Amino acid sequence: MTIQSGGHAILQAGIIGGTGAEGRGLAARLAAAGVAVLLGSRAIDRARDAVSSLSDQHGLRALEPATNAEVVARCDVVFLTVPFDHVTAAIEAHRDALRPGTLLVDVTVPVAFDGGTARLLEVPDGSAAEQVRRLVPPQVRVAATLKTIPASALGRLDAPLDCDEFVCGDSAEARERTTAILRMIPGVRAIDVGGLEAARILERMTLLAIGINQRHRVRAARFRVVGL
Amino acid sequence: MTIQSGGHAILQAGIIGGTGAEGRGLAARLAAAGVAVLLGSRAIDRARDAVSSLSDQHGLRALEPATNAEVVARCDVVFLTVPFDHVTAAIEAHRDALRPGTLLVDVTVPVAFDGGTARLLEVPDGSAAEQVRRLVPPQVRVAATLKTIPASALGRLDAPLDCDEFVCGDSAEARERTTAILRMIPGVRAIDVGGLEAARILERMTLLAIGINQRHRVRAARFRVVGL
Repeated sequence: MTIQSGGHAILQAGIIGGTGAEGRGLAARLAAAGVAVLLGSRAIDRARDAVSSLSDQHGLRALEPATNAEVVARCDVVFLTVPFDHVTAAIEAHRDALRPGTLLVDVTVPVAFDGGTARLLEVPDGSAAEQVRRLVPPQVRVAATLKTIPASALGRLDAPLDCDEFVCGDSAEARERTTAILRMIPGVRAIDVGGLEAARILERMTLLAIGINQRHRVRAARFRVVGL
Repeated sequence: MTIQSGGHAILQAGIIGGTGAEGRGLAARLAAAGVAVLLGSRAIDRARDAVSSLSDQHGLRALEPATNAEVVARCDVVFLTVPFDHVTAAIEAHRDALRPGTLLVDVTVPVAFDGGTARLLEVPDGSAAEQVRRLVPPQVRVAATLKTIPASALGRLDAPLDCDEFVCGDSAEARERTTAILRMIPGVRAIDVGGLEAARILERMTLLAIGINQRHRVRAARFRVVGL
């Protein structure tokens, strides 16, 4: 739901799987940008710990701990940041509670590490984003973004992101809403790249970025588009 | 072969399929960087026309027209810029003439346009670069690069490239030699991204760049890595 406050609509966003590195980083960036954020976890205690630690570290006030179920019940925009092998279970647990019009933003990446080497997991739907689309009710809108940004970069609020984030989605509406949220984060330019099938490319670019990090001993390789 | 000139080794590079937009752009960039370039074509007349037009346009002197067969016979480094559906025929025509130690640099992209919409072609080997690797003798080294740069950007010598080019290859040697050549082109940073299978990602990124060009009405979207 959109909360009215002194005439201004405050966006209520939430994160399923908010206690992981990606979820915490995203929660911090959104809260720092003035978005009201429910940081969700299966266990409310873990959500409380994460919120408390982020609030202490960054002085953020727009963060609130919640269960994943509360996130789904209360948020207009729900980011999914669970590990890829938890995607199906996480969606099935909350599928029936997702309200029509909810925007579900997939941030998961089907990458596994075998002895330190990253590899792409086979996804029968083509991409994690398309798998998410298949699993949720038709009235829920699905977008995917932040696939290529390292959690470590998201989490370091003192370092500017200074990169582009590609946005794909099942509809122009899903992409526009996602883009509008990303625009609130300083240093990020959101680029609409079309339908969800573009996630097949974006998820592979994550693998490229991980490989560049390892090969060139950097920590947060990410992308920018030149000529746009 | 490497030609000695006044104590300096001059790199002799050549281009198979040099009369297309990508080939001409690459020939111009290399020649402008001081590389001796044989611009190859199946038909010597077409190579002569291309060289004559590039020389008139840009005042380049390091360009020479050749047949593709001459390119293979004379060059240390051979760039392959034919349309993807000509790759197998082009390699089979010259396979036996490729000398051990030749570096073959694949610049092809398995993309087709259906009514203006770009789509990736199925490549059983995984990528065009891996297909090239399978087709050439083992003693020939294979690398892939310049997959994501639009021909139009390569060809406009007055506009700085200002982007990164990803380099993958079947060996560290192939990647290093390719990187050394790219470094001669102003405004390009070459990034080693490992083995040839990385071309699966790079070839898809071409599709992403084409989509960005179309969706956002620009002509030369290309990539830069931040954080490196």
